[in-house]
This record gives sequence, structure tokens and C-alpha cells, in this order.
Amino acid sequence: MTSGHRQFSASGVVTLTTDFGLKDPFVGVMKGQVLARYRDASIVDLTHEVLAHWPAEAGFWLSRSFRYFPGGTVHVAVVDPGVGSERDFAIVVAEGHVFLAPDNGLLAAVVDAADAPVLRRVSADSLRRLALDTPSATFHGRDVFAPLAAELASGREQPAGLGPLVDELIPGWIEDPVVAPGQVTGTVVTVDRFGNLLTNIDRRHLLGIAQPVIRVAGRDLPLRRTYSDARPGEYLALVNSFAVVEVARAEGSAAEGLGVARGAPIAVSRK
Amino acid sequence: MTSGHRQFSASGVVTLTTDFGLKDPFVGVMKGQVLARYRDASIVDLTHEVLAHWPAEAGFWLSRSFRYFPGGTVHVAVVDPGVGSERDFAIVVAEGHVFLAPDNGLLAAVVDAADAPVLRRVSADSLRRLALDTPSATFHGRDVFAPLAAELASGREQPAGLGPLVDELIPGWIEDPVVAPGQVTGTVVTVDRFGNLLTNIDRRHLLGIAQPVIRVAGRDLPLRRTYSDARPGEYLALVNSFAVVEVARAEGSAAEGLGVARGAPIAVSRK
Amino acid sequence: MTSGHRQFSASGVVTLTTDFGLKDPFVGVMKGQVLARYRDASIVDLTHEVLAHWPAEAGFWLSRSFRYFPGGTVHVAVVDPGVGSERDFAIVVAEGHVFLAPDNGLLAAVVDAADAPVLRRVSADSLRRLALDTPSATFHGRDVFAPLAAELASGREQPAGLGPLVDELIPGWIEDPVVAPGQVTGTVVTVDRFGNLLTNIDRRHLLGIAQPVIRVAGRDLPLRRTYSDARPGEYLALVNSFAVVEVARAEGSAAEGLGVARGAPIAVSRK
Repeated sequence: MTSGHRQFSASGVVTLTTDFGLKDPFVGVMKGQVLARYRDASIVDLTHEVLAHWPAEAGFWLSRSFRYFPGGTVHVAVVDPGVGSERDFAIVVAEGHVFLAPDNGLLAAVVDAADAPVLRRVSADSLRRLALDTPSATFHGRDVFAPLAAELASGREQPAGLGPLVDELIPGWIEDPVVAPGQVTGTVVTVDRFGNLLTNIDRRHLLGIAQPVIRVAGRDLPLRRTYSDARPGEYLALVNSFAVVEVARAEGSAAEGLGVARGAPIAVSRK
Repeated sequence: MTSGHRQFSASGVVTLTTDFGLKDPFVGVMKGQVLARYRDASIVDLTHEVLAHWPAEAGFWLSRSFRYFPGGTVHVAVVDPGVGSERDFAIVVAEGHVFLAPDNGLLAAVVDAADAPVLRRVSADSLRRLALDTPSATFHGRDVFAPLAAELASGREQPAGLGPLVDELIPGWIEDPVVAPGQVTGTVVTVDRFGNLLTNIDRRHLLGIAQPVIRVAGRDLPLRRTYSDARPGEYLALVNSFAVVEVARAEGSAAEGLGVARGAPIAVSRK
Repeated sequence: MTSGHRQFSASGVVTLTTDFGLKDPFVGVMKGQVLARYRDASIVDLTHEVLAHWPAEAGFWLSRSFRYFPGGTVHVAVVDPGVGSERDFAIVVAEGHVFLAPDNGLLAAVVDAADAPVLRRVSADSLRRLALDTPSATFHGRDVFAPLAAELASGREQPAGLGPLVDELIPGWIEDPVVAPGQVTGTVVTVDRFGNLLTNIDRRHLLGIAQPVIRVAGRDLPLRRTYSDARPGEYLALVNSFAVVEVARAEGSAAEGLGVARGAPIAVSRK
């Protein structure tokens, strides 16, 4: 693995991930600020309903989603319980994509998942040069992140020009899975709209576990291929389309049925 | 009526209709996969809140909405209770538009409504040729439909190149309206966010019914021109802006007030 | 201040603000009608969840958001309790932006906030010329506003060509703040998704009030710089990122905690 061998070459695509919701015009004005600096940007909402005050969920989804976008995409994620206090702006470049987020642990999952990530912090000089050094106290998504994204997506700025390399960012809020011979333990990271429990246990963690059994909320579940392999009401586990272990209930909500929420432990072992 | 006389000429516009909701990044990564193959696509969300497990609603909205988009638009609809089991991918070309959906009855309303629809199924050869033959078991929207839409919207592929003509698709889940002299009976297909009941009774079904009266939930309602022709709280029927009979309650919810849901019968007869 | 000194020069960007929600395809077909007339439009949702039947909220958000979009943007807002009855279509040009809305008071906040606004009403002749003179009775957003926006955003039409100058539009639904020496009283205009109370008291209204105290629901609150300047559960007021006085509760909902809703009075005076 070499460091930074895949350069960023702007595609003009920007993705947005926030906890702002769509009721108010917060996301809309972020897009306005992208277009004000780069009219030809193609802006895609990843989600605006990630859990407020918990950057880990945004980072998880980004780390599992970014490869479905064209190389050269700029991914902006703003979930920031501490907005208004002192906060650095983090940049990660990996696999030809750029990620912008508050330096609060949000990007930890991306750094873990990506090949040869390169980490930077935006410098005060760069913010001054781009006239972004006097943002509002409460809306950095509009006043800093959207303009930075436009500069990068348009190709006018390169990540290396925005700030120095750093060795590490603020660590993530979720522990990495613990892998032992024939067993792995992880965490429920998010619950999707269907009530499915998504975990940070990756497909590769299951290699070498023959006939895996998933233990969650006191139950042992078999690993199936797809939802329709279970009868209505039955619980099942599967490696989902984002390559992580997921616990579902056929035609129902596993989260409700099992009484399990984000942060719950989950283990996979051999039968 | 001639068959297929209006060719598809790609406009670059893609619409998406799903039951995925906007809480999770499922729709976002579908858009990523469109842009990854066709950077200049213009992608429009039709709705992502159609009823899960009931493809009929998605088909209804598509059949009533597609003509408001430019000719050459590719419409993708994914509502698929059986994802993961064996499933064909259906293509309909009609009035210069292309429709892509699982072959599960979703497109029946489009086939019924459109002039001279041409039906195809995507061939295994085409999926192989486009490297789409090993999708995930659970997310065909991202792994098959989005890439196919990009190929069609960019003009690189034509519908005829993707698979053979077929005589019919899987039938729809709602019976067609029954038309008798001076009377038509139909079905409530969906309930909009205001609680209005939308039916599959078209404006043309009312031709020849003088002074029509709409019977639903044991009530006889007059046909009005617009919502403001009723007093607050009053029920009314009208031919709505999508040219179907709709039952509304002025400044209220007809669905709640009448206790009527999807699938309910509705009849129109002369006074 | 000169009148109309900043011309409109189309940027191709269109924003949409409605009370249609995203459950149904109403917003989608509006976008279809924009693209059908202008394929290269860049369409941004401002919000589709403003309060139905209360155009004031849409106007407030527009007046506070438009400057974050590129000059030459066309802003369409449709909140129209009286759709179907007689209704003029209003055009405001200000600061290089164009605003289209029903003439029902919606644009009052924009006219108040903008520099040198120029007011027009769309003429019957223009509607005829553009083949927009026979809209549906209930969906002017799709049948009139979207096509007008496309014509303006593409640069094919100029505001002056669409209808005559008028001296005033229908007045707004909220009284302007009352400013007295050392005191200003205003109104809660909207409640955001976090339960924060947003008012029509602007930052400039506070000039000359030393050590301002905000009185709402029988409480006196200090003016803070940002949310994190308060302890969890504590109420605070601040001038928010849209430059209006906002009442918040740290890590909670001020609206719920204080029992305050839209329309409530709020006063600022010196300590």
C-alpha cells in the first residue's frame, strides 16, 4: 500500500451528509453557496437525517457509500455537536475522493475503511485567502464547508493547497470490531428506516468463520443470503449490500422486535 | 395507433421512484451510480415514499407524471417486495419515454395509460456485457437499475439493444375500472399527504355521465371544480390536476374523516 | 437607493419553496416542467415543508436565504390556500434575483428585506403567449410557475416582458417589528426542526440596545453568541446565522419547553 498514490482529479460532483433534515432551508442554502462559486456542480444528497449529536453514523454511511460515486467526488459531512466552539476543518483524500468534515471523529470510519488515506487540516491562511475566515458562529456548513467544496469540485483548489498534512485526526466514537480466532464482536452503528440493524462487522471479518451464527439481544441467528430466505416475522442476519453484517426481521422491524438500538453489542462466532 | 412510432431519443434526464425513503443513503448511492457512468445526467426524484410492498402505487404515479418530463427521459422505479428472488428487469418504451422496473406488475399502469407501449425484458447477455450480472442480492436499484438508466440516458444504449420484445409483463395488482352505461366503478389507489383519496377513474370515464355523483364510504358527493368550491369541513369530489377522480375534504383529511384507505371501492353514476 | 439598478441576468439556477412535502410526486413534476422547457436548469429545493395555508413562513425563509444563491437565480414559491380562486401571479426583481409567487402576501418579507425591489404582475397576454393560460384549477406550481421559471432561468424571457410594473402587492400576514428607543417588539415567524424559535427581529434592530434582554413567554433571556455558550437545558437567545433573533434551548426544544408557537410576541429591550 503506497501513500496517496491515487490523486484527486475533480469530477464536479459534491455529496452532502448532514443532520439538518429537510424541513428548513439549511441544506438548500448550502447548495446555493456551492453553486454561487461553481455553477456546474452536480450536488447529491447522501442523507440529511443522520443522528444529530453523533458523528459516527455519518462517518459510517460515508465510508460505505463513497465508492459508488465517480472518482473525483467531494464528500461534505457536517454533524457537529460542538459548532461554535473551537473546531478544526478536516480533509481526507483517499482512493481519488475528497472528504470534508469537522475534525470531531466523523471521518474516522472513512480513514479506517479507505486505502491509503491522506489527512490534512485546513489552515487559517487558506480560510483567509478564500475569504472564509469570518463565518457565522453556528452554520459552518454554509459558510465554510460549501465554499470549500465548490473550490475543490471546480478544480480551482487542490487538497494540498488548503492545509498541511497531519498524522491523525480526532478519533472516532465507536470501537473497532474485536477479532479473535473464530469470533468477532462489533457494534450496531445505525438502524435504517425498515428497522434493520446495521453493524460495523465487515464481510472480511467473517472469513474463516465456518457456518457463522450471529448473537444479538440474547438470540442466535443464522446467516442468510437475502430477506426472502426467511418467513414473515422471522429474524435473520445477512451480509447486506454495503458488505456489513445486518440483522433484519422479514416484513418487520428488527429494532422494535428485539428492542435493540444504536451502540448495542453484536457477536459472530462459528456454530 | 401505430406501434412504437415515437422513438426514444435520450434527453439526459433520469427520474427515480422508490420506497427507500430519504432517511438512509440508498437513493444517494443510486444517484452516485448514475453519475459514475454519465456525469451530465440530470436526476429528479419523483417520490421515495411510495408504499413499500405495493408496486401499484409507484406505477400509478409514474403513469400520471411522466408526460410532464421532457421526451427522452428515463424513468426508474424500484418497489420490489421480492428482491433477491428470481426477477426479470422490465423495459417499457412509450411516447418517447423509457421506463425501467422490476417485472412485478409495477409498470402495468404505465402500459395501460400510454400510447403504443413497447415491452422488453433485459437479457442476461446485456447484463453480462455491461458488467451488471453479479449484483448484490438486495439492492438492484443501485447495482442494476441505476447503471442501466445511465447507459440509456447518455444515449450509449438503446432499449432495443438491451433485450428482446415480449408480449406482456407481469400483470398489475389493481383491477381496471369497470365501465357500464352511466356508471363506472374503480379503486382508491393512493392517499396523498393532505389525506385526499386518488382513484384510478380517469376524466374520460366520466364522459357521458351527466351530473355525476361520486359514491364512497356510503356517501354521495357532488363533483366540484376545485377545493375552494366547498366550505371548510365539507367533502367533495373533483377531477384533479392529474386527470383522475379525487375525493377531498376542504381544509381537512378525507381519508381520516371517511375512514377510507388504499384499495377501497368508489363509484361514479348519474344523479 | 436607486430603483432596479441591479439587472437580472439569468444564472440558470431555480429554487423551489412549497408546502407540497416530498411524499407525493408534486415537486418532481414541477421539476419535470422546468426541465421540459430548459434542460440545463440547476434546480435546488429550498424547502417543501413550510406551513400550509400560511404563506408568511415561505416568504420569511426566502427573504433570509436568497442572497446565498448566485445572482441571476429564479426563486419560485408556491404556498396558496386560495388556489383555484382568482389569483394574480407576482414577480419581484431585487438585487439581481427574480421571485415568482402567487400574489397573496407571500413575497412581502422579500419586498421588505431587499434593496430596491421592482414589482410586477404577470399579464394575461404573457400567459397566452407562453401557452400557460389554461392551467389546471389546482396545480399552478406545475402549470404556470414552473414554465415561467424555465423561461426566465433560460434567459429567453425577461421580467419586464412578462407583465406591467405595479406599485404594490397584496400585503404580508405578519406585522413589521415595532421599534422604539431602546426596545423592539416582533413576532415568532417559524420554528425550525430543532424547536428553535425564529423571529422577524433583525440584527440591525438591536443596534443601540446595550446589553439586550429578550423577553418571551414570561422569561428574560440573555443574548449569547452561540448554542454552546449555554448549559444543557438552559434557554438562550442569539442572533442566528440568518441574522435574526432566535430563541433556543441548549440540547433541547425551546418551542416545547416554553410552549411557544408561530405568531407569539417577543420583545428585546435594554437590561
